[in-house]
Amino acid sequence: MGLLVQKYGGTSVGSPERIAAVAQRVSRAVANGDKIVVVVSAMSGETNRLVDLTNQFGGQPNEMHRDLVLATGEQVTVGLLCIALEKIGITAKGMLGWQVPVLTDNAHSKARIQNISGAHIEAVFEDHQVCVIAGFQGVTGQGDVATLGRGGSDTSAVAIAAAINADECQIYTDVDGVFTTDPRICENARLLNQVSFDEMLELSSSGAKVLQLRAVEYASKHNMPIRVLSSFSDSKGTLVEEREEMERPVVSGISSVDSEAKLTIRGVPDLPGIAAKILGPISDSGIDIDVIVQNISDENTTDFTFTVDKKDTSEAEKILQKTSESLGGGLIEVDDDIAKVSIVGRGMRGQSGIASKMFQSLADHEINILMITTSEIKISVVIKKDLMKKAVNALHDTFELDKNLDN
Amino acid sequence: MGLLVQKYGGTSVGSPERIAAVAQRVSRAVANGDKIVVVVSAMSGETNRLVDLTNQFGGQPNEMHRDLVLATGEQVTVGLLCIALEKIGITAKGMLGWQVPVLTDNAHSKARIQNISGAHIEAVFEDHQVCVIAGFQGVTGQGDVATLGRGGSDTSAVAIAAAINADECQIYTDVDGVFTTDPRICENARLLNQVSFDEMLELSSSGAKVLQLRAVEYASKHNMPIRVLSSFSDSKGTLVEEREEMERPVVSGISSVDSEAKLTIRGVPDLPGIAAKILGPISDSGIDIDVIVQNISDENTTDFTFTVDKKDTSEAEKILQKTSESLGGGLIEVDDDIAKVSIVGRGMRGQSGIASKMFQSLADHEINILMITTSEIKISVVIKKDLMKKAVNALHDTFELDKNLDN
Repeated sequence: MGLLVQKYGGTSVGSPERIAAVAQRVSRAVANGDKIVVVVSAMSGETNRLVDLTNQFGGQPNEMHRDLVLATGEQVTVGLLCIALEKIGITAKGMLGWQVPVLTDNAHSKARIQNISGAHIEAVFEDHQVCVIAGFQGVTGQGDVATLGRGGSDTSAVAIAAAINADECQIYTDVDGVFTTDPRICENARLLNQVSFDEMLELSSSGAKVLQLRAVEYASKHNMPIRVLSSFSDSKGTLVEEREEMERPVVSGISSVDSEAKLTIRGVPDLPGIAAKILGPISDSGIDIDVIVQNISDENTTDFTFTVDKKDTSEAEKILQKTSESLGGGLIEVDDDIAKVSIVGRGMRGQSGIASKMFQSLADHEINILMITTSEIKISVVIKKDLMKKAVNALHDTFELDKNLDN
Repeated sequence: MGLLVQKYGGTSVGSPERIAAVAQRVSRAVANGDKIVVVVSAMSGETNRLVDLTNQFGGQPNEMHRDLVLATGEQVTVGLLCIALEKIGITAKGMLGWQVPVLTDNAHSKARIQNISGAHIEAVFEDHQVCVIAGFQGVTGQGDVATLGRGGSDTSAVAIAAAINADECQIYTDVDGVFTTDPRICENARLLNQVSFDEMLELSSSGAKVLQLRAVEYASKHNMPIRVLSSFSDSKGTLVEEREEMERPVVSGISSVDSEAKLTIRGVPDLPGIAAKILGPISDSGIDIDVIVQNISDENTTDFTFTVDKKDTSEAEKILQKTSESLGGGLIEVDDDIAKVSIVGRGMRGQSGIASKMFQSLADHEINILMITTSEIKISVVIKKDLMKKAVNALHDTFELDKNLDN
């Protein structure tokens, strides 16, 4: 008998039939003797419909008012799932963000959770079997409805799980869990039984969009185990949690992204503060920068390369052009025919030779490396886009990810 | 400079374009120097869509959960109207039922308003020009979302107007106001400038569905003037309020209904309590009874006739059959080929001769009367359905309703 939080995303509750199926799944957990808190997203397509409505008045809508509209998506799902549960004999109580309450800051449309009181949720179990809570939403200190931004439902679920000290936060999606790499790219991709928070963070930030980054960060901070699993199958999914084993695989997974573009500014003065001068104006305009590489060139100048999302390429180029002029020149090159491939693994910490093994494998397959960056548990290379699939498969073989060693 | 409540129904906010038009209308009132509280319904069609969703799980949905779903309709309109207002430079603040708060009882799906605190609404005007409130919804003492039932938005508007002591509650609809009779039936129908609460109540209950009965009752009890007007024109509309003039027209309006059926049980024992024995079981099953007529027959038996909505006919007949058996017989007759025509007027109080003038007019047009009932300010006759239009026009002429005497 445990206390579980189950979160169902938009696809899992995309129709009345799907909602009825979720009710069945919840009822099986109830039959196990578990207390279940369910956190739901809006039915798939609904949030887009509501966003479109708010955009019908010209210009950018006021975000506080827009939140009032968007929050209805999850509210509808809460009511419908409660109806579906009662229909199969499970007593349920629905709760909106303000009823829990999920207290947030005032940053409408991207609010951050400040505090969740677990008392109201716990009281629900005095006379109900299941508590259904609207994800993605909370209430500000002023009593206004606020949304957490896209994907905020995962964060809601983890934060609620932490607030009530749940045994596990189960995130139901339309995939079976976290794979060693994208199964659409590599047919040998294997479902992982377990992965650590930091590995999950690196995988998420490198293209494996199974979980929202914010949710993983929150779970890691509060040490709340997350299980990623499918609402369309009976797979056990992947458990994301902190663990310290004696032996673990060196590399846990491979992620790949081909949605970025690479910008280079050449021959800028190699002076302290030059990175901030170049990247500051780009960050200030709201563009996310991913990989950054700086290399010493000749005659006291340096070459500076970074990647941004493709949609931001022309904006970033424009800003970079201005910076180049103020710095007294420097050729700008743009390349959006690239892909980033990363190997991620907690086991590579302190292990030497992993990087050279990776580079050798790519060389053996005649894949030229354009950029390299490394973090403590990740090594990323930027290569030509048409080589991405080849690179992922080569590395998957090299690090024997199709074999279940202890995962 | 006044304090006005304006209520816009589903047709008035049926699309983003219509909502933008409402924003323009509100901005004109703001330019007049008035403080404006706007109460909105769900966009037309939206409540039906939501009801359909809640019916997808088989059987009657739990009403508390259904309220959570239905309340989103008005919430969306609140957010969209606030966005539209800000877009034309009007500062607005949206409020949901629980934020006002509109406190209701626990009768989910048909909750009654128990108390409204005006303080939060008044505080909005410290730094906003307009307060937009979701109609049709409130919050129970337990903190659950509750809806007031269909048409509850009119009641919300009147109750909010009373709570903040507004100068007038303006109900915007898709008609120009209250007419002497249905313009589709009588081409001489004339828009009334004024009508009293009790006249409005009798007109509402007799088929003129411009205002919800509950809203008129609430307004009458709290002496809150209502103005019924069109959101599609610039008509001044009709003011519904209490007034005591020296002279007034004898008859203010004529209403007609052809959606009822007449049931008669003949030859039942003429004993005390017989009416309750016959009508009790029918009311208990949730069927609304309209006109009731009892006449003494012969041999200590009586004939008993009443009307119900057509959709309830077969259910009422079934119940009546059982009652007849337990009373020891009594022939049952059903007739749904009927119409009810009523003349309504405060001026007829204490005036003799109005009824005979009505009956004479109908006789002159060869219209046979099947039933008669009277109240203090209304006389209703039941006639054959195909004579309804003829009767309405005849009475409109007879009482000279096309002429503006003092209204």
